[in-house]
Amino acid sequence: MNRKLSVVIAGGGSTYTPEIILMLLDNLERLPLRKIKLYDNDEERQNKVAKACEILIKEKDPTIQYIVTTDPKEAYTDVDFCLAHIRVGKLPMRELDEKIPLKYGCVGQETCGPGGIAYGMRSIGGVLENIDYMEKYSPHCWMLNYSNPASIVAEAVSKLRPNSRVINICDMPIGMENRLAEIIGVPSRKDLDIRYYGLNHFGWYTSIKDKSGNELLPGLVEHMKKYGFINGEKEMKTAEKDSWFETNLFAKYIVETDPTTIPNTYLKYYLFPDYVVEHTNPNYTRTNEVIDGREKDVFTACAEIERNGHSKGTILKIGIHAEFIVDLAIALAFNTHERMLLIVKNNGSIQNISDDAMVEIPCIVGKDGYEPLTIGKIPTFQKGLMEQQVAVEKLVVEAWIEESYQKLWQALMLSKTVPSAIIAKQLLDELIIANKGYWPELH
Amino acid sequence: MNRKLSVVIAGGGSTYTPEIILMLLDNLERLPLRKIKLYDNDEERQNKVAKACEILIKEKDPTIQYIVTTDPKEAYTDVDFCLAHIRVGKLPMRELDEKIPLKYGCVGQETCGPGGIAYGMRSIGGVLENIDYMEKYSPHCWMLNYSNPASIVAEAVSKLRPNSRVINICDMPIGMENRLAEIIGVPSRKDLDIRYYGLNHFGWYTSIKDKSGNELLPGLVEHMKKYGFINGEKEMKTAEKDSWFETNLFAKYIVETDPTTIPNTYLKYYLFPDYVVEHTNPNYTRTNEVIDGREKDVFTACAEIERNGHSKGTILKIGIHAEFIVDLAIALAFNTHERMLLIVKNNGSIQNISDDAMVEIPCIVGKDGYEPLTIGKIPTFQKGLMEQQVAVEKLVVEAWIEESYQKLWQALMLSKTVPSAIIAKQLLDELIIANKGYWPELH
Repeated sequence: MNRKLSVVIAGGGSTYTPEIILMLLDNLERLPLRKIKLYDNDEERQNKVAKACEILIKEKDPTIQYIVTTDPKEAYTDVDFCLAHIRVGKLPMRELDEKIPLKYGCVGQETCGPGGIAYGMRSIGGVLENIDYMEKYSPHCWMLNYSNPASIVAEAVSKLRPNSRVINICDMPIGMENRLAEIIGVPSRKDLDIRYYGLNHFGWYTSIKDKSGNELLPGLVEHMKKYGFINGEKEMKTAEKDSWFETNLFAKYIVETDPTTIPNTYLKYYLFPDYVVEHTNPNYTRTNEVIDGREKDVFTACAEIERNGHSKGTILKIGIHAEFIVDLAIALAFNTHERMLLIVKNNGSIQNISDDAMVEIPCIVGKDGYEPLTIGKIPTFQKGLMEQQVAVEKLVVEAWIEESYQKLWQALMLSKTVPSAIIAKQLLDELIIANKGYWPELH
Repeated sequence: MNRKLSVVIAGGGSTYTPEIILMLLDNLERLPLRKIKLYDNDEERQNKVAKACEILIKEKDPTIQYIVTTDPKEAYTDVDFCLAHIRVGKLPMRELDEKIPLKYGCVGQETCGPGGIAYGMRSIGGVLENIDYMEKYSPHCWMLNYSNPASIVAEAVSKLRPNSRVINICDMPIGMENRLAEIIGVPSRKDLDIRYYGLNHFGWYTSIKDKSGNELLPGLVEHMKKYGFINGEKEMKTAEKDSWFETNLFAKYIVETDPTTIPNTYLKYYLFPDYVVEHTNPNYTRTNEVIDGREKDVFTACAEIERNGHSKGTILKIGIHAEFIVDLAIALAFNTHERMLLIVKNNGSIQNISDDAMVEIPCIVGKDGYEPLTIGKIPTFQKGLMEQQVAVEKLVVEAWIEESYQKLWQALMLSKTVPSAIIAKQLLDELIIANKGYWPELH
C-alpha cells in the first residue's frame, strides 16, 4: 500500500471540487496521493476554486504536487485516476433543461425526461473527449465517471468506447443508503448489505440486510409508507423543508407502487409526473436554488480562503457523499474486491432485460475492474418500465451518432415523461434552438 | 377436398354473425360445410339473429345442418372449427370502457389503454371457458380466436392454456392491406406480399411488394404523408367522414413518427393520445355509434328476413373482411401453407423482443398449425414501445390470475395512455366498481 497515486479532477471548476479535495485529503491513509490536478476548459470558473484548493492541500500535505490546467496534455499525463464530473453547458444550460419542458407541462429535471435527454446530447461529446485524452496520455488510467446524465453517458461510452477504462458510478444510491442506515439506526451504510437493480436514477432495492444477515426490507417499507426516506416524526419536525426533504418524503407514495421493494426517489419523475409538475415553480427551479445557494456559498468560501491564505473557520466541508469515489479508486488500486453499485452493460445479469442495456447493479471491484453480480429475473412491472427507458437512452445516443432529428423525436415521444408525439416535437424544436452549438446539428 | 366440416360460432349473438354466415356460405366450394352452429350464453340476443341465419343457410344449401344453442355440450360436440368472437359484458360494458377513461382525460377505446385493460379482465375467463368446452367435447377442434382485446386474450391463452389448439388472429391488418391494395390499384390485398411485425393493434409494415417482387413501401409512405390510408383526392372528396375515415386519414401523422414503415392506425392511441382525447365526444363514443348504427341495422334486417321468410332485398352483406377466417380454416383443414399474420408467442422470431411476448407476425399455416417467420432485430423505438406494451398486457393477465389489485394498478400506470400513478389508481378504483361481477375480486 505504499504506492502513491496521481489523480486529475475533470470538471475542476465544479462547486463540488473543494469538497472532493477535502475528501481525498481526509482519506490519504487509505489512498495515498502524490499529485492532484484540476482540469477544466473554463479557466475563469476553475480559478474561482483553484487557489482555495491549493491552500487546502498545502495545509494537509505540502508534498502533494498540485496542478491547475486547461491543457488536456498537462491534465492527463501521468495520472492513475480521473474523477470526471463535467457539466457541458454548465448551470445556464441546466436551467433551460429544467424550464423548457415545464413550458409544455412536462417534468423539468436535470437528468430525467426531456431535460435529461437535452443534457445527454450535450454531455456525450465532452465525456468522449476526456476519455480520448486519457487514453492518449495515460493509457493505464481509470476514469471514475460520475458525469450526468449518467445513464445516457454510460450508454454512449459503452457504444462508442467499448474498451475504454471507464467506470460509471453515481452517488444517488449512497444518499439513499445513508438515509436507510439512519432510519435503521446503524452508524453507516457500510453496516448494511444491499441488493439493488435498475438503471441509473431508476431502480429498486430488493434486500437490505444487517451484518448478521437479517432482512430489514419489509420493516423499512412499512416505515417508508409513512415517512418515505425521512427518519420518523423527529426529523419530520426538525428537518429543513427544502426540495430534498420533499423528494425524500415523497418516496412514501412511490413505495406504494411496489411495496416489495424500496424505490429510487427519482422514479417520481416517471410515475408521478403530474404531481411533480404541479409542485414545481416554473420560474425558480433547482438550478436557481443551486446558483443562489451552493454556488454562491462555495465561491464565497473559496474567495475567503484565498484572501485569508488559510482555511480556518471555512464553511467548506468534506464531501462524505463522495467517499464512494475514494472507495472505488482504492478497490481498483489495491484490489479490495469491495462491493459497489456500478452502471454496467447488462450481459445477462438481469435475465429478462436486454443484454446491451446499461444497468445499475452490485459489482465486485478489484484490480482489473468489476465483476457484476447476477440479478436473475425481475418482475414484469420493472421490466416494462426499464425497457422503455433503456430504449429512450439508446435512441438519444443513436440520435447523437447519426445526427438524427427523427431518432431524437422518437426518444422524446417514447419517454414516460412526455405525453405525446405532438408535445415531443414542440419540445424538440425548442430544445434544438436552445442547445445550438452544444448538440450536433440534426437533420 | 371432399371432407365436409362442422363449425360453431361462439358469440352467436354478435351483429357480425350474419355476415360471417354469408361469408361461409359464399366460400362453400373452398370450405365445404356439413354443420353450422351458433352458440351464445345470451339466448335472447342470439335469437335476434338466429332465425335470419337459418333462412340464409337454407337458401344457399339446405343440406347444411343448423343448430342454435346455449348449451356448451351441444355447441362443442362434433365440431372442427370454433370461430370465437365473444364479447363479455357486451356493448353496455364497452360503453363504460370508453367513457370512464375519458373522464380522466385518457383515451377511451375498446382494446387500447384502460378500456382495453378493463375489457381484457372481463374476456379472459370467457375465452378460457370456451377453450375448456372445446377440449372436452371436440379435442381435435381448432379455435380461430378473434375475440378482443386480442393481445391480452392471446397472452392469457398462451399462459393458461399453452397446449390448446387456439389460433389468435385479428382482422385489422386485413383492413389496412385492403386499403393499401386500393391505393396501389391492385384488385386484392392477396396481390401483395407483406412483412409486418408488432403486437396486436400495435405494429408496423416493413415491406409491401407486388407479385413481381417490387418494393412499394417508400412510395406508399409518400402517399400516406398526404392522405394516410385514404385513396387520394378523390376519396377525400367522396368518402363519408365517419370515425373510420378520421382514423385512416390520421395515419398521415403516425407515419411521420417512423417513415421507414407503415404503422397500424391504432398507434394513434399510444403516440397521439392528447389529440385523440381532444377529438372524442365523451358523451357519444364509438359504442353509441355501433348501437345506433350497425346494431340497429343488423337486428332490423334480421327481423325483416325472419318476417319475410326470405332474404331477398336484404341489406345484409357478405363480411369480406372476415374472409381471413375462411382462409385460416382452409389452411388448417387442407394444409395450404398460406401465409397469414397471427398473434403467436415470439420465441425468438423478433430477435430483440422477449421470447414470451405474444407478437403479431407472418406465419405459414398448415395442417398442424403455424410456423412463424423470423423477423430479426427491430429498431430501438419499436422495441421500447413494444416491451412497454407487452409488460402492460402481461401484468393484466398476472392480475387476473393472482386477483391482484397491485398488478392491475401497475398495468395501468405502465400504460403509455395513462399519465401517472395517481390517475391510474383513480381509474382502477372506478373500473373495479363498473366491472363488478365480471372481474375476479381483486385484493
